[in-house]
Amino acid sequence: MNVTLKGQSRHYRTVDFDAAKNRVLLIEQRLLPHEFKIVGTKDFNETALAIKDMVVRGAGAIGATAAYGLAQGVRAFRGQDVAKFKTWVEVVFHTLKEARPTAIDPVNAMVWMLGRMEQGKSVAEVQQIALDAAREFADEDAAHCAAIGRHGAKLIKNGMRVLTHCNAGWLAFVDNGSATAPIYAAQAQGKKFHVFCDETRPRCQGATLTAWELAQQGVPHQVIADNAAGFLMSRGEIDLVIVGSDRVLGRTGEVANKIGTYTKAVLAHENKIPFYVAIPLSTIDWNLRRGVDIPIEERGEDEVLGAWGVTKKGKREYVRVANPTSGARNPGFDVTPAKHITGIITPAGIFKPKTLWANRAQLGFSSPK
Amino acid sequence: MNVTLKGQSRHYRTVDFDAAKNRVLLIEQRLLPHEFKIVGTKDFNETALAIKDMVVRGAGAIGATAAYGLAQGVRAFRGQDVAKFKTWVEVVFHTLKEARPTAIDPVNAMVWMLGRMEQGKSVAEVQQIALDAAREFADEDAAHCAAIGRHGAKLIKNGMRVLTHCNAGWLAFVDNGSATAPIYAAQAQGKKFHVFCDETRPRCQGATLTAWELAQQGVPHQVIADNAAGFLMSRGEIDLVIVGSDRVLGRTGEVANKIGTYTKAVLAHENKIPFYVAIPLSTIDWNLRRGVDIPIEERGEDEVLGAWGVTKKGKREYVRVANPTSGARNPGFDVTPAKHITGIITPAGIFKPKTLWANRAQLGFSSPK
Repeated sequence: MNVTLKGQSRHYRTVDFDAAKNRVLLIEQRLLPHEFKIVGTKDFNETALAIKDMVVRGAGAIGATAAYGLAQGVRAFRGQDVAKFKTWVEVVFHTLKEARPTAIDPVNAMVWMLGRMEQGKSVAEVQQIALDAAREFADEDAAHCAAIGRHGAKLIKNGMRVLTHCNAGWLAFVDNGSATAPIYAAQAQGKKFHVFCDETRPRCQGATLTAWELAQQGVPHQVIADNAAGFLMSRGEIDLVIVGSDRVLGRTGEVANKIGTYTKAVLAHENKIPFYVAIPLSTIDWNLRRGVDIPIEERGEDEVLGAWGVTKKGKREYVRVANPTSGARNPGFDVTPAKHITGIITPAGIFKPKTLWANRAQLGFSSPK
Repeated sequence: MNVTLKGQSRHYRTVDFDAAKNRVLLIEQRLLPHEFKIVGTKDFNETALAIKDMVVRGAGAIGATAAYGLAQGVRAFRGQDVAKFKTWVEVVFHTLKEARPTAIDPVNAMVWMLGRMEQGKSVAEVQQIALDAAREFADEDAAHCAAIGRHGAKLIKNGMRVLTHCNAGWLAFVDNGSATAPIYAAQAQGKKFHVFCDETRPRCQGATLTAWELAQQGVPHQVIADNAAGFLMSRGEIDLVIVGSDRVLGRTGEVANKIGTYTKAVLAHENKIPFYVAIPLSTIDWNLRRGVDIPIEERGEDEVLGAWGVTKKGKREYVRVANPTSGARNPGFDVTPAKHITGIITPAGIFKPKTLWANRAQLGFSSPK
């Protein structure tokens, strides 16, 4: 999407690749919304660290980052020894996979690339295939998000108040976003509407990233405390909820997403407000049979016990908010059951969550299980 | 309750009065949990400002503050002119009433005092009655909270995980608290249990005040993001919810409380977890017929767009978290319908919310309406 810097508007992708320098180019998202900066990772370990430390985050963006990271790692191999090369590729794959255990997109992206790479007959050929495949993956991610936007924009009517949680915006993908794609598409169609961004504690990706995105694209919006969504729903001030997901179970329609998503879904159901989940097909996990088996990352206490922001003097600081002698629990994700989800917006159309399995052929699942 | 400062434990009340200096003594709650300090307000205007600016907050505490503030204002009158005195008392009353429009306790406390004061035959007599009445009010507040503790402690069993929202602790009353009274009483009975404190954005009274209180009393606890309560409930990690209230409608059982309370009630109902509201009788509004008519304060944007805390260097700072070009909505309270509330814990016992009206005589409502 476009970013305006010093009055100049320019198109950026969230994740890109500099083939000459063999660097993955990432928008340093931890500096947003206060500073816009592109960083280039020097090797696949740095790329994995960028995923782990949330320089880059969001389903599609970490998928593309892992894809480019795999290509980057594969291209860094020197020599012709095929056995050593295979071991090297495995190390690269596992390093990138372990960077975010809850997410499915990095694994899906890299497994797909490894399939392509098997066709290479030499180290050099595999290296070229890896680069081409990573680029194709990133281009498709952007195209899929644009398709999500075309389907989802139909749900947004003039005058609506739309709630979104966390950041499933273009910063979470290569471009367009998933939850935001319908918003940007509806805006491009000239529709007028208002967006509420859950601040999304503890990391506040809604207040920082989604609010920044919407401001950059000129979409009218307001940040709310996560606690306020229920009140606004109960007073008829929210007409539609669209969120993203880190993993959707194709067999059950359950949705794993940023902590707090389940809460908003329960509230939307209670108040008879449509609740949609927007995802690319790569987010669907066709194997797992129970949402309770999705690993839920327990993150560090400091995220809950304080907040990062900018002081009056413009300095980026972490402030401790909570009582200094108290600890915290910090589950990073939750799982929403299918019964609370109105529909899943995909590049292939909108589906009721429990019909994903019946439509699996259309949704890109091919091998029999 | 007791506060340990430099190894010395001493009993404090949240709100007290220095009759010699005619000052209301308040724990400066905006400095907690990082600093413990008692402030004395010089006149009733300063007392009203302390309520408005949340030096003191919480139903019972602002009730007692208004009571002492009324006595303070009444006692500051010089002269014997009864007509001028009456006008003066009205100014004091309205100044204190307007400090927090959503709350019912200051009004109830002061109206009760004014009734007493009508028996005074001279300015001096009324001034003495006002002081005695304010003291009686504060003592009764502490006694009522102790009674809430006795009834509510029966709900807490060994091994339970109890969730609370915001601060309805002793800092919100003169002593003991409402939502925390059962916790302190159960602890005094030797029961072992764990408390989760919702951080309670945007002002984080759970992370700051409730966590500080529980730490001072040695109750095992953890702070959680407001977003995490639903997840913990869905995984069977919360057994009981106890919150306070700013206003309970005696006719409908609806509960106005800190923003986010409605959300936790809906989640508790969805997960079949008992949800209790602990209140003194003064919190019951016997007049209002519809929860939707309770005025909901819309507070400033900065609370949502950033956070107050302490930097690594120990300096108290506000940091801007959200995108600098975005605004916010900030409703301070919400209303929970009776159907999501298991029971109302009062000094007179525990009642189902829809039975308050039938039990109104027992609950202190006397005059026919």
